[in-house]
Amino acid sequence: MKILFKNITLMYGDGSTDRNMYVVVNDEKIESIGKELPEGTFDRVISGENKLLCPGFYNCHTHTPMTLFRGYAENLPLSRWLHEKIFPAEDKLYPEAVSVASTLSIAEMIKNGTVSFSDMYFFCEDIIEATAAAGIKANISRSTVAFDPNITAQTDDRFLEAVKLYEKYHNSADGRIKIDMSIHAEYSTVPSACRYISDFALEKGLSMHVHLSETKSEHDACVEKYGITPTEFFERNGVFRVPVTAAHCVHLTDNDMKILAQNGATAVHNPASNLKLGSGIARLEKMLSERINVTLGTDGAASNNTLDVMKEAYLAAILQKGSTGRTDTVPSGAFIQMLTQNGANMQGRADCGKLAVGARADLVMLDFDMIHVMPVYDYCDAFLYSANASNVVMTMVDGKILYENGEYQTIDIEKLKYRFRQITENYFT
Amino acid sequence: MKILFKNITLMYGDGSTDRNMYVVVNDEKIESIGKELPEGTFDRVISGENKLLCPGFYNCHTHTPMTLFRGYAENLPLSRWLHEKIFPAEDKLYPEAVSVASTLSIAEMIKNGTVSFSDMYFFCEDIIEATAAAGIKANISRSTVAFDPNITAQTDDRFLEAVKLYEKYHNSADGRIKIDMSIHAEYSTVPSACRYISDFALEKGLSMHVHLSETKSEHDACVEKYGITPTEFFERNGVFRVPVTAAHCVHLTDNDMKILAQNGATAVHNPASNLKLGSGIARLEKMLSERINVTLGTDGAASNNTLDVMKEAYLAAILQKGSTGRTDTVPSGAFIQMLTQNGANMQGRADCGKLAVGARADLVMLDFDMIHVMPVYDYCDAFLYSANASNVVMTMVDGKILYENGEYQTIDIEKLKYRFRQITENYFT
Repeated sequence: MKILFKNITLMYGDGSTDRNMYVVVNDEKIESIGKELPEGTFDRVISGENKLLCPGFYNCHTHTPMTLFRGYAENLPLSRWLHEKIFPAEDKLYPEAVSVASTLSIAEMIKNGTVSFSDMYFFCEDIIEATAAAGIKANISRSTVAFDPNITAQTDDRFLEAVKLYEKYHNSADGRIKIDMSIHAEYSTVPSACRYISDFALEKGLSMHVHLSETKSEHDACVEKYGITPTEFFERNGVFRVPVTAAHCVHLTDNDMKILAQNGATAVHNPASNLKLGSGIARLEKMLSERINVTLGTDGAASNNTLDVMKEAYLAAILQKGSTGRTDTVPSGAFIQMLTQNGANMQGRADCGKLAVGARADLVMLDFDMIHVMPVYDYCDAFLYSANASNVVMTMVDGKILYENGEYQTIDIEKLKYRFRQITENYFT
Repeated sequence: MKILFKNITLMYGDGSTDRNMYVVVNDEKIESIGKELPEGTFDRVISGENKLLCPGFYNCHTHTPMTLFRGYAENLPLSRWLHEKIFPAEDKLYPEAVSVASTLSIAEMIKNGTVSFSDMYFFCEDIIEATAAAGIKANISRSTVAFDPNITAQTDDRFLEAVKLYEKYHNSADGRIKIDMSIHAEYSTVPSACRYISDFALEKGLSMHVHLSETKSEHDACVEKYGITPTEFFERNGVFRVPVTAAHCVHLTDNDMKILAQNGATAVHNPASNLKLGSGIARLEKMLSERINVTLGTDGAASNNTLDVMKEAYLAAILQKGSTGRTDTVPSGAFIQMLTQNGANMQGRADCGKLAVGARADLVMLDFDMIHVMPVYDYCDAFLYSANASNVVMTMVDGKILYENGEYQTIDIEKLKYRFRQITENYFT
């Protein structure tokens, strides 16, 4: 399958743009990018008039099945949200509910221009099957918690499940599925477990997905318990020997940031969830100045409530201005990097996240012939501040169009909605 | 024209909801609301399956023609934004540009569920004609500035223009158009002008639209200059003798809030613009606890960049949680009040902003059969936290459908886009 995007505006993974360009996608890769009409025949020619083509977006921290609980626990602080509502609701999970809810989440993400996501949850086989079928990419991790100080790698069922996932699924679905290891959080994991989980990740060359300093109370409780911050706790227990995907990072100290930067870790910024759960606003500008690889995530739909990482980029941008009082704090292009190339970097996908010859054709096309984005003085600013997910008209992964103008190629959306309704209407009865 | 909404979910102006309801709109008013299918014949029956019907939204502070400058002055602080970019751009304004840009803004607002807006700008006749033709409601004010201490009511051309607007347009277009008076801001208006402008408003029973304590620097400069805050300045100079529409209110003191509350003033919260220009986050919870009538506004498209007041409600809600650290700070229903009934109250439209028998049929219908809002545990929370303007499928003003499923009844949208493109492409050359 050979597709030509004709006379289109490009936005690269660093936010720079070019007008009137030609891009050829041949099977799963970008074959050429140029200013002239390329020779040859094409299976399809797509007019780029008033369209923007850019690398697809990375949703770098989510809990995919949690669309089941979207809106189920509103207006509660994180600890009550978890203990009174979410944990009891999760006790009722079953494979079909996870499978259908994951597909619904993936459909929402695809519609919003997401080409890959990083998930931390359980029932991972069901999430993986849904991801593989939908054609999107993902780094999936089995969330491990370990409260018992006597637990070992041999007795930790969650860890053993993660090991099996790695053996069965890592680099499956033509490389679209990768397995990360996961330590749920400092407060839910004893030091010995941090050690053997990261030992395994180190041996196999895997990344580690964690929650880190999401709330002030959890951060302060760690300092009180151990005399060190959660970041320092993970460092002491060997976690930073592997690439770390650290979600939230709202309450990092300056020293914590240096630890992340020195160890090539990624901080996943989740502005909507952090505001909605009252956790605060992460110090994005400071993290970037420390040269941490920063990405964006929606968190789960139970706390966000949507899986729209373009919204996160917008929120991140205006929050930095509003919270610092400076309008020049973080340049617009940095948010495009977070949405695209920093995400691919975090997921260990060297050939993704960019508009470049030879790269995987993971692309999003946006329509700029819509009144809420007119006029366009600068495409990168217009994308960040005026556009939203309603501008997305096409999402392509590995050269395959998964979504175009409201239609899905890999998901029967009406059947999906019907099954999701059945499941959620009966879930708590 | 008699329209029946059949078996629909209602959300009232206070955020409370009712399932499986029947609403009849007869000409410009709501004729009945009930749990039973009403008798009679109808010109049209609209199925309410998976739909939410609610009062239309009020965008209570905007500068409608500024879509011309959407994205023209990004990443600048307010004073540089104004002096280096916006003021020189505004010097080039001409009637046709204002007319076309206003219609584009109004089209965007209608699509986003807005039924009425409050505008402060100049070229007001062109804004008014665009508003009247589009079928939406608005309170329009001529922004007056007066730097010369010797200025009088007889020599103030801007004030005299406002007086003429009142005489020609107040309560025109079947009452859809109202004229407010306006004092641009404390820092742009000498005390004597505040006095004669508010004298006129008092005599004619008009409201006064002002910018108030938007930035810390403007607030502090007033304290330095006069020894009192901008709110106290307006109080001293007679402005609070009339109902005041005070935009922004980011840096109000506790005493300022008491002055607003005691005088029945409205604080218009503009969260997106306040963040994007680095102005800060208004203390919404405190304003509500003082019983100020709080509404929502987008500000102009040059600072927002969109005219989507649903987005403002969402931002306002998550920002209060994030900035206070408390998830129970302002209940969801309060944001519905700000969007609807508080706006009607501010604009002096006693028969608008509510789903009630005899009220004007200014209504919005939203589709909840969309994957990003599923499931719905509570309609008010789902509206606020999951839904967005893409859920709006119908906007009705005075019983007339202005927008339905992407189609406009009063605006030729393709012609409008074409004219807008011509104007903006040539504007700065």
